Amino acid sequence: MARDTAQAAVALGGGHGLAATLSALRRLKDDLTIDDLTAVVTVADNGGSSGRLRGEFGVLPPGDLRMALAALCGDDEWGRTWADVVQHRFAGHGEMQGHVVGNLLIVSLWELMGDPVRALDWVGRLLGAHGRVLPMATTPMDITARVRGADPADPDGVSVVRGQVEVATTVGQIESVALVPEDPQACDEAVEAIRTAEWVVLGPGSWFTSVIPHLMVPGLRTALAETRGRLVVVLNLEAQLGETTGFGPADHLAALFEHAPDLTVHAVLVDASSLADDRDRLEKSVADRGARLVVEDIAVPGEPRHDPDRLAAAFARIVEEAVEGR
Amino acid sequence: MARDTAQAAVALGGGHGLAATLSALRRLKDDLTIDDLTAVVTVADNGGSSGRLRGEFGVLPPGDLRMALAALCGDDEWGRTWADVVQHRFAGHGEMQGHVVGNLLIVSLWELMGDPVRALDWVGRLLGAHGRVLPMATTPMDITARVRGADPADPDGVSVVRGQVEVATTVGQIESVALVPEDPQACDEAVEAIRTAEWVVLGPGSWFTSVIPHLMVPGLRTALAETRGRLVVVLNLEAQLGETTGFGPADHLAALFEHAPDLTVHAVLVDASSLADDRDRLEKSVADRGARLVVEDIAVPGEPRHDPDRLAAAFARIVEEAVEGR
Repeated sequence: MARDTAQAAVALGGGHGLAATLSALRRLKDDLTIDDLTAVVTVADNGGSSGRLRGEFGVLPPGDLRMALAALCGDDEWGRTWADVVQHRFAGHGEMQGHVVGNLLIVSLWELMGDPVRALDWVGRLLGAHGRVLPMATTPMDITARVRGADPADPDGVSVVRGQVEVATTVGQIESVALVPEDPQACDEAVEAIRTAEWVVLGPGSWFTSVIPHLMVPGLRTALAETRGRLVVVLNLEAQLGETTGFGPADHLAALFEHAPDLTVHAVLVDASSLADDRDRLEKSVADRGARLVVEDIAVPGEPRHDPDRLAAAFARIVEEAVEGR
Repeated sequence: MARDTAQAAVALGGGHGLAATLSALRRLKDDLTIDDLTAVVTVADNGGSSGRLRGEFGVLPPGDLRMALAALCGDDEWGRTWADVVQHRFAGHGEMQGHVVGNLLIVSLWELMGDPVRALDWVGRLLGAHGRVLPMATTPMDITARVRGADPADPDGVSVVRGQVEVATTVGQIESVALVPEDPQACDEAVEAIRTAEWVVLGPGSWFTSVIPHLMVPGLRTALAETRGRLVVVLNLEAQLGETTGFGPADHLAALFEHAPDLTVHAVLVDASSLADDRDRLEKSVADRGARLVVEDIAVPGEPRHDPDRLAAAFARIVEEAVEGR
């Protein structure tokens, strides 16, 4: 595809799901299908190295930002080496155990620069990153969930669970999620990127704790409603024990629409092998929204993870068909 | 000075003293007086962030290596920014308190690469460093000291104190220092750098814990004896409470010669204002060794630290006079 049709893309998510999307989208950047790539990352984590650093320094949890940056690292020895370094997790049994070097690097840049976006851009420069990584909001937040049956002794009782880790591992059924504070300040650069992008990709990833939270940030939600770009929702390959136990593709999409009834979707991308009995329900739900259902082989065969090359090919087809007006 | 007379220099030491030497020598590199600069760094620290990391991971203490690398950082925004990052020390009251980011970065590179020298070269590349930083040995070690009067109740008793921190802060009088193990494996690249350099600079710095330890590593001592390079000893500006309480310039030099009776010295550089009653003794000691005593104003006026510009000017004169055969 020629450079004069190249377009900007924004990917929203967190964790390994976002890393998969970015690994795919960077291939489209290499192909000149897209010329500008931005990741907008959930900042509600309260576990692991990120949670410890957030607790100690009151900063944004850096882990998902770090993982997105590493996924965009340069293709050369320099980029890959520094990506390995920032992803390095200390072992052992001491005070450093479980901390990830890139998290510490990001926190130190935040402390030095006082500007979260500028600091992340510096890590991007270190990695020779093929895109920009932004937090979805500029202050840390918590995810809360209304959960049915969190207490096994009261299977119909509804309670509120707080914290990304606690929500992700609940034994109950999540009915809805919200943020505390409920109106976090969206990152200005993320809002601008969404407004001006031709393409916005949401998912895959931990559905209630990495994907839907973006829709709960008022500034991002408005930007998603007003963008000139087309929104592509990438569904997960399988349910995630805890937050989406028992979910099929249609259930994932239904949960998304319940949290953002006004969302305009261009396409819903789903892996062919993940479709089961709920295909009809999924097709109806997609059609009701005026969206396209795109069924492709996008998983690593036999594994519950997206294949970056296949995902890139699927994105490329969606972009190409839109450009050709199909 | 023209490039065809440019020469290689090696600086041996640790801590702030070595950083001062490197800040001076890099100016000679800018001037093309020297064309190759290597720091060889003490690796016996057992305190602070370095001591904690050494204890947790069994690695070389990274702190003095980090400080030397930062002193050699590039002159541009890139070099200065990453130097600020690697020098950043976490505050607060949590598990990260007191840790320095560059120490964690170096340890992670050691874990990833398994090769201490290659890892340090990568940090040097990150910083755009104007020289190479090497450890004096490839395995960590402890400094021990025979100390008179370490126990105030027994002012004439001699005991052995172990550990850089413990030696540096002893209340007794240090009679001699040694290493455990007593024959650590010198870093091959450091030996080679000393053998082939035109200039070797020893000191300033914590005399018994950062300067003299180099002379106690058999491989470095042999290299210092066999090098074609000229050795310049830079004396401290004042005594250091604890390890050199009450020491004047002549006492510093005497302690050095006691630990390395066979050392050939080209010049002893001393600050004019630090000379006192012991000038005659210093002159005699220097003359007995066939060395030159070079008295210059090399301190920041009114402060007990070396001025990099003045130190650079003094080095430049010593080099120039040697080249001109004076």
